[in-house]
Parts: sequence; structure tokens; C-alpha cells
Amino acid sequence: MKISARNAIKGTVKKIEPGSINTEVVLEIAPGVEITAIITKHSAETLLLAEGKEAYVVIKSTDVMIAVE
Amino acid sequence: MKISARNAIKGTVKKIEPGSINTEVVLEIAPGVEITAIITKHSAETLLLAEGKEAYVVIKSTDVMIAVE
Amino acid sequence: MKISARNAIKGTVKKIEPGSINTEVVLEIAPGVEITAIITKHSAETLLLAEGKEAYVVIKSTDVMIAVE
Amino acid sequence: MKISARNAIKGTVKKIEPGSINTEVVLEIAPGVEITAIITKHSAETLLLAEGKEAYVVIKSTDVMIAVE
Amino acid sequence: MKISARNAIKGTVKKIEPGSINTEVVLEIAPGVEITAIITKHSAETLLLAEGKEAYVVIKSTDVMIAVE
Amino acid sequence: MKISARNAIKGTVKKIEPGSINTEVVLEIAPGVEITAIITKHSAETLLLAEGKEAYVVIKSTDVMIAVE
Repeated sequence: MKISARNAIKGTVKKIEPGSINTEVVLEIAPGVEITAIITKHSAETLLLAEGKEAYVVIKSTDVMIAVE
Repeated sequence: MKISARNAIKGTVKKIEPGSINTEVVLEIAPGVEITAIITKHSAETLLLAEGKEAYVVIKSTDVMIAVE
Repeated sequence: MKISARNAIKGTVKKIEPGSINTEVVLEIAPGVEITAIITKHSAETLLLAEGKEAYVVIKSTDVMIAVE
Repeated sequence: MKISARNAIKGTVKKIEPGSINTEVVLEIAPGVEITAIITKHSAETLLLAEGKEAYVVIKSTDVMIAVE
Repeated sequence: MKISARNAIKGTVKKIEPGSINTEVVLEIAPGVEITAIITKHSAETLLLAEGKEAYVVIKSTDVMIAVE
Repeated sequence: MKISARNAIKGTVKKIEPGSINTEVVLEIAPGVEITAIITKHSAETLLLAEGKEAYVVIKSTDVMIAVE
């Protein structure tokens, strides 16, 4: 499946922390560069996410902000 | 200023394409890893974004999805 | 590819209206039930979207609100 | 009240699963077509959501992605 | 209609700037406090928005970030 | 740091309610005008949020909807 979201970046699952409804997932997408996602616990289980596993972060471009110092 | 958004990643502006209301901005956040943002043209101008300039992508963790192959 | 977004609904593209940066896409996901998406013009072109073509709407569950009368 | 969100689709509440802060709500919007929403537990209670009750899913069009096979 | 979005704040339309697909709308929600929205041009027209008119900004609580100095 | 999000409004933290993964934060941004945010518990702790403390709500303009009566 090909999705309209402009950002799909391959990485490795570093940490998974399940809550009651949501689960926090941290992926390393480049050496020392991590992205944190909050997905439903249901999705985390369905995707069989596990530490060390390869996965993609997918982000719609309208959800990305830019900041400068 | 410190923000609750969990993801703030430093990068370099690679491309800026202004539309009528929105502007598309591409940043390289690691060698070969790019993130595309759609921000308002007004913001792109206020931040003085320019190709080659350093900037951060900022993404709220609830806006990040995970995919697996 | 399998994505964490809980909502992926098959439909048929009914209308495509390109703007300068964004494109408005209307899909019929059930008889008489339409969903409108704003995606980048770049994505609409990459996905080769065309009226009459089958496609999916994908929506993260945190982006869905509920209303009652 | 009339809202700018382009997508407001009538359905029936199929499942409600409360967490600590958020509640997961599943609506059937057409025969066999379900949409999952994550809303705050506070909102689920204020709206008096209950299984079998009619409700609308409301989705801003910028939050809808498109995928093709 | 009652919506799950936790934030619905009354204000006055101060500025409307239509683009090709999207329209930028600025509302004053308290003396000197403005909120900018990007909605589709189609919605802005359907809602008959006009400068000086009363309207509400509606924001899902998961879309609100917090920052501190 | 200067961010592309068009809405950054100063307020006072009125209530903090931590869940398992997310925390609900209510800010008063003008007399009688409150905004509710759902951020990660991790962020709420990192920002050292506390009732009575000054903070900003930050909202991307694409996440703001407009409603009229």
C-alpha cells in the first residue's frame, strides 16, 4: 500500500511503553535521532511491535512544524 | 521556549515551495533522511526560512504513526 | 505495509481538485457516504489518483471527533 | 452549530472502552464500515455516549490521508 | 450539535484570506488574543464567514501543545 | 526558539490530571477562557508544569476549526 503521507522513515523500535488505551513507541531513525509516537495499544499489538524490530514512522506533512533558533 | 511536542529534530532546509496560503518545506534531518512540512506562507516568511539554513522539525507524538512491512 | 492508523476504509475517488500546494480529494466510501481529504498536490500525483479509481482513506483515531445531536 | 470540518458522518456507537484519560469509541457509519475515535474520557461522559446510540464522526479534511494498493 | 472537541471558544472574525484550496481565518477570542485557522475555502464559503461576524474556534485537545519559557 | 505554529497564547495552568501515558492540562488564557491540552505525561513532567504556573498553548493553524451558530 502506498500512502499520501509524505513522510515515511525507516527505523528501529527502541522502546515501547503501553498505557491503558495508548502506547508510547520510540524509534531510532538515524544514529542518535529518535522519534516518539503515541499510537493505540490495539495498534501496537496488531503490528507486533517489539524492541529491536524494524518499523517506519509515518507523518502527514501538515502535522510537521518548523522552528528556528 | 521549551515545548511539550516530543519530537524536535535539527536539520537543514533543502527546498522551499510557496503556494497561495501554504508553503511546502523540505528539511534534511540526517544524511539522506528528509522530512516535508506544510506550514503557512506567513510562518515561512516570519521564520526567514531559506535553503541551506538550519532549522528544526517539531512534531507532536500523537501525530506520528507507525507502519511495518 | 501495515499502518498503526486504525481507520483505513476502501472507496472510490469521486472528485479531485488541485490547488497550488494542496489537492482536495473526495472519496465515496459507502453509497452516499463521502469523505473529503486535503493532501499535497505532490502526493495526489505520485499516487496517480483519478476519478473512478479505488483508493483508501486513512485516518488516525486521535484525529476523529464524535458529535451528538 | 455548523462546523468547518468537512466530514460529519452519522453512525451508531458499537463499542466504548474507557482508559485513564482517553476513551476509545467505535462507530458503525455504514453496514460493515467502522471508524474508531480516541476522545477524552471527559468528552465521552459529557456526550452521554452509549452503545447503540446515534452519533456523528467529525473529521477535519487535513487529517485524512489517501492510500492506494 | 455537541462535539467531543474540548475547546470551543467564541470570537469575532477579524480577517479572512482565501487561497486556492485553503482559506486563512483570524478570530479574536478575547481582547488582543487572536487565533488563526486554516480551513478549506469551501467551508469558509459554506459557513458564510465574514469580518465582524461571531464564530467559534474549535480545537481537539490532542492538537494543543504546551510551552514554557 | 521561534516556531511556525501560528498560535502561541500565554496563560496560567489551572488543572493538571495525569493518566497512564497522557496528561490533561487546562490553561486559562483570558479571564474565563480556558483551553484543554492532552500532552504526554513525560512532557508534563519535563516542562515542570504546575497549577498557577505561566505557560503557553501552542496550536498549528491547520488544527483549528471554525463553527458558527
